[in-house]
Amino acid sequence: MRNILVLGAGRSSSSLISYLLNHAQAGDWHVTVGDFAAQAAAEKVQNHARGRSIRFDINDVEASAAAIAEADVVVSLLPAHLHPLVASHCLALGKHLLNASYVSAEMKGFHAEAVSKGLLFLNECGLDPGIDHMSAMQVIDRIRETGGRLTSFESFTGGLIAPETDPDNPWRYKFTWNPRNVVMAGQSTAKYLQEGKYKYIPYQQLFKRITPVQVPGHGNYEGYANRDSLKYIDTYGLADIRTMLRGTLRNSGFCASWNLFVQLGCCDDTYEMEGVDKMTHRSFIDSFLEDRGSVPVDQKLCERFGLAADAAEIRNLRWSGLFSDAPVGLSKGTPAQVLEHILNKKWKLDPADKDQIVMWHRFVYEHQGKRKQIQSSLVATGTDSVHTAMAQTVGLPLAIAARLLMQKKIAAKGVVIPTTREFYEPVLAELQQLGIVFSEE
Amino acid sequence: MRNILVLGAGRSSSSLISYLLNHAQAGDWHVTVGDFAAQAAAEKVQNHARGRSIRFDINDVEASAAAIAEADVVVSLLPAHLHPLVASHCLALGKHLLNASYVSAEMKGFHAEAVSKGLLFLNECGLDPGIDHMSAMQVIDRIRETGGRLTSFESFTGGLIAPETDPDNPWRYKFTWNPRNVVMAGQSTAKYLQEGKYKYIPYQQLFKRITPVQVPGHGNYEGYANRDSLKYIDTYGLADIRTMLRGTLRNSGFCASWNLFVQLGCCDDTYEMEGVDKMTHRSFIDSFLEDRGSVPVDQKLCERFGLAADAAEIRNLRWSGLFSDAPVGLSKGTPAQVLEHILNKKWKLDPADKDQIVMWHRFVYEHQGKRKQIQSSLVATGTDSVHTAMAQTVGLPLAIAARLLMQKKIAAKGVVIPTTREFYEPVLAELQQLGIVFSEE
Repeated sequence: MRNILVLGAGRSSSSLISYLLNHAQAGDWHVTVGDFAAQAAAEKVQNHARGRSIRFDINDVEASAAAIAEADVVVSLLPAHLHPLVASHCLALGKHLLNASYVSAEMKGFHAEAVSKGLLFLNECGLDPGIDHMSAMQVIDRIRETGGRLTSFESFTGGLIAPETDPDNPWRYKFTWNPRNVVMAGQSTAKYLQEGKYKYIPYQQLFKRITPVQVPGHGNYEGYANRDSLKYIDTYGLADIRTMLRGTLRNSGFCASWNLFVQLGCCDDTYEMEGVDKMTHRSFIDSFLEDRGSVPVDQKLCERFGLAADAAEIRNLRWSGLFSDAPVGLSKGTPAQVLEHILNKKWKLDPADKDQIVMWHRFVYEHQGKRKQIQSSLVATGTDSVHTAMAQTVGLPLAIAARLLMQKKIAAKGVVIPTTREFYEPVLAELQQLGIVFSEE
Repeated sequence: MRNILVLGAGRSSSSLISYLLNHAQAGDWHVTVGDFAAQAAAEKVQNHARGRSIRFDINDVEASAAAIAEADVVVSLLPAHLHPLVASHCLALGKHLLNASYVSAEMKGFHAEAVSKGLLFLNECGLDPGIDHMSAMQVIDRIRETGGRLTSFESFTGGLIAPETDPDNPWRYKFTWNPRNVVMAGQSTAKYLQEGKYKYIPYQQLFKRITPVQVPGHGNYEGYANRDSLKYIDTYGLADIRTMLRGTLRNSGFCASWNLFVQLGCCDDTYEMEGVDKMTHRSFIDSFLEDRGSVPVDQKLCERFGLAADAAEIRNLRWSGLFSDAPVGLSKGTPAQVLEHILNKKWKLDPADKDQIVMWHRFVYEHQGKRKQIQSSLVATGTDSVHTAMAQTVGLPLAIAARLLMQKKIAAKGVVIPTTREFYEPVLAELQQLGIVFSEE
């Protein structure tokens, strides 16, 4: 029996699982969904004739091996640090593995063995990383084929909210994926290439050194640099490129406000705060400011960072309730945990909320002695807080790749990412049919 | 034969070893000095009748055990992370251990066994930590005994240069101890207590939130907070104190200039930079700033941080050669390693240079309904770049404690720090005779 095993039935799994179940009859396969919470897996499968749900606990080595042994292809949505464990099982049992996470050093180490066993370990095949690689390489290969020479590549992607969602929210942001990752974002130094020079942006500068991004037909955004833009210079085959910058997109004004949390130290996850059980939103912020008797927290904040009392940054923090006397509502926590908990009170997706993915690339190249530019962008809007654009854009590339693999349409072996034509052409073509469409100018 | 084993013959060992050798005849003991570099150990011992030098390699377990087996007391100046290894030997062989490092969690774990074996594992018995604990507790105990109630304790210590050293150096600073530790200082969030409230200062704020310190008769300094001021609230027995702040002292203006390195990301030790072999001082700084064509680095720096072209911070960086075209002179390195290497060109102690230790405490207390204040300070100046004040103030407390222990004048057992009378009274009294004197007002 041909079988696809999906590990993880969380937030971003719905589109992936639906796609695989919908194609199960035609493709002649079955889909098993495994999650630590068996109920979550069951809800995703419903009673589909070709679906099955199981409780999957990666720490139970024997049961994990048994579940993987029954599959032809394993698609893992587990947290990234668990992928090497899954990969070890797949190597031992001769199974293909697909996931949407960055290739770790450990994963890279499996390459030779996977190749020798004829296995595909496909990584970075979601949205970002994933669709970004595929859509970029499609344009880059086209520029090359027409004799152009790429001199600059900038790419920004953000998981935002749709314009009609929460119109009074001045941040124009809610948690559309793992809130903890949002709070912890950017804590490693960002590295990129600018005009032939290596550049480094530490955390304390990251949300100040933003790139304005105008997406044709959709408005103004701003981007901050991702951790490592350099590693794709080789992967994309761009040895002589002069500017290479990948980053995260936010609506205008977000970064200046978020920067206050960064500067205060609110995103620190390295120590437990004292007295969290008695902490209010306001006393949380105050613990990062000097004691000045009865001077209000917002005034101290303005004075420390040279902001006017009615500055947008202060307004945004006030809207998020940071100056209120509401109790935090945790018994203990690191600054990052407390901040996440406070922000989640206003930033949790309501059932009717729609998320929106915005991806933007700018390619600058020389062609027959002339400098030319292509901008390419994708805007995808979710249906509601369950059927999110995030779930579609992360899950569908994986689902399509799994289908192609089951149909023996993929020749690649070993630890790879989807930067070659055999991935990007069929995946982008099908995404387009599913309404995930890039526009170019 | 009674024997004291000193581990480590580096920069801060000279005063310690001289003291122990000078007292060897009267105390009837011998002194063995062990160092990985046998020659360094030999130079410290000279041909003293009661001295002996050996090559000591902590990784050679058998030889380490053999050397420790011959001692009654082990004084370790090895790097702090090696102390638990030394302590394990001492536990197994029934030897006392003295060192000047902060008590680690691992060291703390040896307490019960050390007590049961009747061994003293004395830590934090150098300058800072060390003399700071002893001099503070002497005053705190006196305040308590006279019925006073301490409400605030602030304490700052710095290893600086003497006023006559390098008078044109606008930083008023040179490397008087491990340069790497200076470059890496402060990267963990500082925690302290202010007016009854827990306060946290992240790295990105640390050199901006300074405390002005005026040392009577010596001028104006500034202090930045140490990593954890809270842990001494219990140790000092100050459960109801309202302000508790320990920190590092620098000459006025240092912190604002150093803050530029912090904000740029120059002190990061988590990644290797690209192209260090071809890097100049100026291109090092430029790699932390945006590319803006031919705009000079110092101008970009001024604009990013809102500084005037002739600001003291810019002048200090220029004096340190950061805008020069001189090659860095390393083949590879992290930002912290490159910065240390550049700074060391101007901040290395010359043979005739004198260092200066400045320690300052302020005690605020209530006595018979009145608010009172005591300031206590120590200023110690070195003789030259070998016989430094740092070597004296770190080494002599350890040496005196070793003598007291050999003379059976110390009753404490287990993992302790010198906050009790049996340590601070004899140690401070002898330091005073040796010219290390606190003045009070």
